[in-house]
Amino acid sequence: MRSVSIVGIGQTPVGELWDRSARQLAYQAISAAMADAGVERADALFLGNMLSGSLLDQEHLGTLVADFCGFHGIEAAKIEAACASGAAALRIGAMAVASGFHDIVIVAGLEKMTDTVGKDTTAGLATAADAEYEALHGVSFVGLNALIMQRYMYEFDVPLDAFAGFTMNAHQNGANNPHAMFQEPITLQDYLKAPVVATPINIMDSSPVCDGAAALVLVPTEWAKRFTTGHHRGAVQILASASANDTLAVHDRRDPLFLEAAYISSQKVYRQAGIGPDDLDLFELHDAFTIMAALGLEANGFARRGEGWRMAHSGEIGIGGRIPISTMGGLKSRGHPVGATGVYQAVEVVQQLTGTAGANQVRDARLGMAQNIGGSGATIVTHIFGS
Amino acid sequence: MRSVSIVGIGQTPVGELWDRSARQLAYQAISAAMADAGVERADALFLGNMLSGSLLDQEHLGTLVADFCGFHGIEAAKIEAACASGAAALRIGAMAVASGFHDIVIVAGLEKMTDTVGKDTTAGLATAADAEYEALHGVSFVGLNALIMQRYMYEFDVPLDAFAGFTMNAHQNGANNPHAMFQEPITLQDYLKAPVVATPINIMDSSPVCDGAAALVLVPTEWAKRFTTGHHRGAVQILASASANDTLAVHDRRDPLFLEAAYISSQKVYRQAGIGPDDLDLFELHDAFTIMAALGLEANGFARRGEGWRMAHSGEIGIGGRIPISTMGGLKSRGHPVGATGVYQAVEVVQQLTGTAGANQVRDARLGMAQNIGGSGATIVTHIFGS
Repeated sequence: MRSVSIVGIGQTPVGELWDRSARQLAYQAISAAMADAGVERADALFLGNMLSGSLLDQEHLGTLVADFCGFHGIEAAKIEAACASGAAALRIGAMAVASGFHDIVIVAGLEKMTDTVGKDTTAGLATAADAEYEALHGVSFVGLNALIMQRYMYEFDVPLDAFAGFTMNAHQNGANNPHAMFQEPITLQDYLKAPVVATPINIMDSSPVCDGAAALVLVPTEWAKRFTTGHHRGAVQILASASANDTLAVHDRRDPLFLEAAYISSQKVYRQAGIGPDDLDLFELHDAFTIMAALGLEANGFARRGEGWRMAHSGEIGIGGRIPISTMGGLKSRGHPVGATGVYQAVEVVQQLTGTAGANQVRDARLGMAQNIGGSGATIVTHIFGS
Repeated sequence: MRSVSIVGIGQTPVGELWDRSARQLAYQAISAAMADAGVERADALFLGNMLSGSLLDQEHLGTLVADFCGFHGIEAAKIEAACASGAAALRIGAMAVASGFHDIVIVAGLEKMTDTVGKDTTAGLATAADAEYEALHGVSFVGLNALIMQRYMYEFDVPLDAFAGFTMNAHQNGANNPHAMFQEPITLQDYLKAPVVATPINIMDSSPVCDGAAALVLVPTEWAKRFTTGHHRGAVQILASASANDTLAVHDRRDPLFLEAAYISSQKVYRQAGIGPDDLDLFELHDAFTIMAALGLEANGFARRGEGWRMAHSGEIGIGGRIPISTMGGLKSRGHPVGATGVYQAVEVVQQLTGTAGANQVRDARLGMAQNIGGSGATIVTHIFGS
């Protein structure tokens, strides 16, 4: 198996980008990544996207984007694993290079969730849940997370404001990220007075509906030097990669408060990389809701069961803390264009590991983990990257 | 790169299967393939599907099927490339094994196109075309193919009944396939009196809207003997695999009558396998419309430009002919559950190469090719298999 490295990154700002169509967003991110790597061709494009069929009446999106980017005669496919589509595409891009099927692979993530005429984004997002056993009964995606959060607060006797620290940390970091949707810090008061979406989840617990695209250029590690010599940014190696599934429906879980697929996939990547959670310099986790940040810290070995929320208030998750999370704003503040999020996370880890994260730079960052979650924990893809 | 072999196959009958939901169809095919291979676990599931978002309000389909099949902690993703989703998933499954990421991989194709309450299947299929530049103007998928066929007839002076032979060959073979949707031969008279769908395409030129699922078990070739010793069916090796894109919109093509992506991908697989078209014992081509059969024969080196249609009448494409096509009924008679078709094609080549194709067995078949087309030729995936 060939080792695989990332030699170029690109991203659009995240937001309600009504002036750009899906294909234009993808082109913007992909052309930026190719310019960053200094490549003018690619052998394949694997595109993470969840909602183009539901919201844009457009499937065949991989080839549409490849065509719009000017590629001809290359492999193109869309990879869908709900909100984990981006990291699922990254894994497949890595397989394509590792196997020798391809040498230069573009992995992109794309989602256009706003300005979709006559479509219902909430119903679209509910397609990540079980249509016949969850969505049909009227539960939305926020609703499912609200049930989990409610149970967590009951089970572990956690106060309602315990999650505010996750939001404040995310916005603090997003304030310094020019690509973030929200670039202003929030206070505890802002959190406490935020309108409720689905009890107990308020709007400050939730990531926003938005548009965005991000891209990576992958090559065999042995080639990486060619692309980065004399370049401001070094290559980043994919040290470990794993994906695990759980039951799709939350009600089928043995324990709805434990992200078993996160546990399984992170145990695999720790083993592959020969490290443990304490060796990581940062962790881009999937804070689609604050409860997911708490559960992610627990399942991946940073906190004991029922105690992930405590880290939000201890300073441990800040840029200078024990394990910085959401270092560029996370899903809450940078934004969560669902099928693109896993690629944004990888882009941000690359920024950190190449010393180009600006005001949010984690000092001497060498090892970073990213974890992308599909559905309410049903598909979890985890990567460890090293500089 | 590890060589990859297929050690198990499974398929449901194709048809309007109103008594089975999407997940049940997938389970039926996957459990049959696993029983055929004698495996009880898998490391990953790559699921080809096009329309679950549009027609079933269900994304996250890879994990949904993995969960319903009883898999826990494995990788699962849906692969979408319009009607080429099945073969696109097969390529990714092959990469997963070739790279060493996984050892036992399930590749499945699934489509549920009928009994979809309140949904428009024609509009769903049009998502394979360019939503903003083709579908928005009202052209359906059949419409696009009708324009291509009309032009072909004009350009090469081809009579309207010239395509009947493709349909008659497909139905002749489908009559002996217990999994085929249509199991009766048709006559030239049947073809001539068939109602027109979009001039000049009639209902006998067109593959049907239907449901179905098919599955394959992939392992490293060096492991294949373990699974097939004492078994009725031998392993089949994936000798070559390639995918190529063209412009998504037909109006952007340099020449709408030449399947350039078929040419590129078949040239690649011929080179990889070290063979030419004359060495093949059979060719499962993508006869979604009869015009696509003619164009496929031309682009892949079996006929000269403008002469593919002549093969339909010469007996060359029959079971005992020069290059048997649609040997189990093809898309026309077996049926075309779009995202599943590429996997059905692979299943059928395995049947032929292992001598288990029943009444349609091609004698001494050793080398078979399958080609799966997404959109009107925008994504074309080609495989060569060997026994």
